[in-house]
Amino acid sequence: MTVPAPDAPALPAAAAPASALFTDLYELTMLQAYVENGLTDPATFSLFVRHLPERRNLLLACGLDDVLAYLETVRFTDDSLAYLASLGRFGDRFLGWLRDFRFTGDVHAVPEGTPVFANEPILEITAPLAEAQLAETFVVNQIHLQTTLASKAVRVVTAARGRPVVDFGARRIHGTDAALKAARAFHIAGVAATSNVLAGRVYGLPVTGTMAHSFVQACGSELDAFRAFVRLYPDTVLLVDTYDTLRGVSRVCALARELGAAFRVRAVRLDSGDLLELSRRARTMLDAAGLGRVGIFASSSLDEDAIDDLLNRGAPIDGFGVGTKMGVSEDAPSLDVVYKLCAYAGEGRLKLSTGKPVLPGRKQVFRIEADGRAVGDVIGRADETPEGRPLLEPVMLGGRRTAAGTRTAEDARTCAADELSRLPGPVRDLAPATPPYRVRISDPLRAYRDDVIRKVSG
Amino acid sequence: MTVPAPDAPALPAAAAPASALFTDLYELTMLQAYVENGLTDPATFSLFVRHLPERRNLLLACGLDDVLAYLETVRFTDDSLAYLASLGRFGDRFLGWLRDFRFTGDVHAVPEGTPVFANEPILEITAPLAEAQLAETFVVNQIHLQTTLASKAVRVVTAARGRPVVDFGARRIHGTDAALKAARAFHIAGVAATSNVLAGRVYGLPVTGTMAHSFVQACGSELDAFRAFVRLYPDTVLLVDTYDTLRGVSRVCALARELGAAFRVRAVRLDSGDLLELSRRARTMLDAAGLGRVGIFASSSLDEDAIDDLLNRGAPIDGFGVGTKMGVSEDAPSLDVVYKLCAYAGEGRLKLSTGKPVLPGRKQVFRIEADGRAVGDVIGRADETPEGRPLLEPVMLGGRRTAAGTRTAEDARTCAADELSRLPGPVRDLAPATPPYRVRISDPLRAYRDDVIRKVSG
Repeated sequence: MTVPAPDAPALPAAAAPASALFTDLYELTMLQAYVENGLTDPATFSLFVRHLPERRNLLLACGLDDVLAYLETVRFTDDSLAYLASLGRFGDRFLGWLRDFRFTGDVHAVPEGTPVFANEPILEITAPLAEAQLAETFVVNQIHLQTTLASKAVRVVTAARGRPVVDFGARRIHGTDAALKAARAFHIAGVAATSNVLAGRVYGLPVTGTMAHSFVQACGSELDAFRAFVRLYPDTVLLVDTYDTLRGVSRVCALARELGAAFRVRAVRLDSGDLLELSRRARTMLDAAGLGRVGIFASSSLDEDAIDDLLNRGAPIDGFGVGTKMGVSEDAPSLDVVYKLCAYAGEGRLKLSTGKPVLPGRKQVFRIEADGRAVGDVIGRADETPEGRPLLEPVMLGGRRTAAGTRTAEDARTCAADELSRLPGPVRDLAPATPPYRVRISDPLRAYRDDVIRKVSG
Repeated sequence: MTVPAPDAPALPAAAAPASALFTDLYELTMLQAYVENGLTDPATFSLFVRHLPERRNLLLACGLDDVLAYLETVRFTDDSLAYLASLGRFGDRFLGWLRDFRFTGDVHAVPEGTPVFANEPILEITAPLAEAQLAETFVVNQIHLQTTLASKAVRVVTAARGRPVVDFGARRIHGTDAALKAARAFHIAGVAATSNVLAGRVYGLPVTGTMAHSFVQACGSELDAFRAFVRLYPDTVLLVDTYDTLRGVSRVCALARELGAAFRVRAVRLDSGDLLELSRRARTMLDAAGLGRVGIFASSSLDEDAIDDLLNRGAPIDGFGVGTKMGVSEDAPSLDVVYKLCAYAGEGRLKLSTGKPVLPGRKQVFRIEADGRAVGDVIGRADETPEGRPLLEPVMLGGRRTAAGTRTAEDARTCAADELSRLPGPVRDLAPATPPYRVRISDPLRAYRDDVIRKVSG
């Protein structure tokens, strides 16, 4: 986590670790049952996505840093224990056990920023059963959130074809935690900056912003508003659509004449109407006024489809502010992320519930490459002879992060760019890849699964 | 906010007030421009939803309590100010102004739990321009989140026709803040309980839960798992689909024979497969075993459509666990919520941006009722002669909550049930209401709007 704070003070509350009570009640009732029944052997839980949404060729794994921070710090405070005692379901012995709770296990995970596919473990936690079980709710919550949003953002960045995309989502992303984590996930996916100041503070991300209609309205005249804003922020972006977009652009041109060499406005921002037509006409007006260096920045309910369409039709737009549709992953706001027991006490475990298969034991994902280009993945057993480049690595051992567990958001952004560049072109495209990226199960894992199924069914 | 804490300790971090840095950068750059240019007159901003999603006949207003808590407590800490100074955009005078920042304005709002419709103000903030402007990001974020989720939950509760709905969303709701606030919003919408322990602690909501497949798997045999769990939790719900649902039910029957009068299991839970068929066969088996009092609880990717369909086809299901699809409002994960300047320095203001109209001045919503049944709403000016029951009320004056600003989640739940019962039947139904609920703009407001448009365009 990059925190280039002026004087490295404590993180704001919004970035504080989650309460241990952020869990489903059944995790705690199961924990008590494990503890009371002596079910304390090591278990492995595997976190993976069962199916990719229709409009996703790949997912970008994200959220590991928050998972590790949680596992390092999760504690039951006196307040939490008093609340649990008040529920009448938990005995003193178990509450004492919770008081001493520390996570002591291992985590194997793909680096943040790694493209992953259906059924591939994003992370596996191996720890005494109760420790690994307790983590479920928070771990799934954070990996789900951040992977959902990073996977959407990759598409938006792809559509923008090198033009900067700015995260404008804070006001409609679901809650403050999501908005903060989103800004980081978007950064990993290649988004250029965020409007979210807290995300800038917590993660050291570039923050940016323009102006709102309210500023223009409050100032009385649009030209007065532009003058006042430019006096304070000479290289700002001016919002031109409060009353009439093209009249707004002509006022920017007037301001340029007025200020002469002092005019340093970077761009105009279009936020409503027909962005193709308006961007063309604004470009023509700006160029005619000798303002070729003033860019055009667009926002207004944008997503990857709208951006792709605008650029396909030649819209002269230099950057995009993208809010809600990226911020809630509007077309696929959830993923079928699960966290499933796959080994206990040295034996592979799985459930047979209809249509919800699990791969038993600790696993590895091997990415097969030819000429530097990925051609497919193999999901295998953790101890198998590698068929390709293994993606999961130990990021926490015995409750402590390894070096691999301390990768930063910058590392993850680099990882994403690099790994994405190695995938087949159609998999990186917006349209559904045909055929989809190939993922198969290794022969040893298949044999082991059949073996475990026979045992469980027997 | 109901907090029946054992010993009233401080709230956990996850429920702490948001950082003042949870804002879009442009709010702060505009604030500096307001301060530097003496734009300090009172302003009114109006928060409303521009359009209802296709599958929503109504929205349930939610999130006000968090808005008021934020306005009461928002402060710029030394850390925040140091970070802002490091950005190089803010001068010492403005940073000093931020250091002293307090919200001193008024808030008028509909009570939480009130059904609202397109263009109706959910709240209006009247305060010195900069104070009202700063609030935008957080206020929109919270009202958007909580109204989106409460509005979805109302549909799920409607579909369940009096059967309890339990919130299972914590693991896939977007982040910890949203999961916490969701549990409260769902409670307001009529959901019976949540699995989220932190929400129980913070809001005093009923918490509940069953067991996971991992427990059954870890125990080796399903019957052993049931025995171990029932020993600790005699009135629990047993998950029966880990290996084979109907064999699981038969093991519950076996356990009942084994335990005799000590058998107090409340229900079995089905979590996969064909819930209609499985619930029928489970019901038959339980009844044949003399276990008519053992209910059937269902989960597995449920939403209002799935529940409605199951009950239409006579599925003998007594309660529903609903997770992801309610928790992210899968079919409508965002609302077109905006927060727009509508008055400044005593004059109505609006912008004319294409297709995004604003109603000027402070407003009121009047609900017209006949025989105790709502027949339509009128959006009017705040000082108009009431045409019906006014919905907005002062909840904060001069920066302090009024009595109306201290309503609890319980009050909101009661309000929702009462207000919903007064709406026309088709508006409460799942299918699109034809005609939709009628909302019109009063003659005085229409005249005022035309007047302001003439002035702004002139």
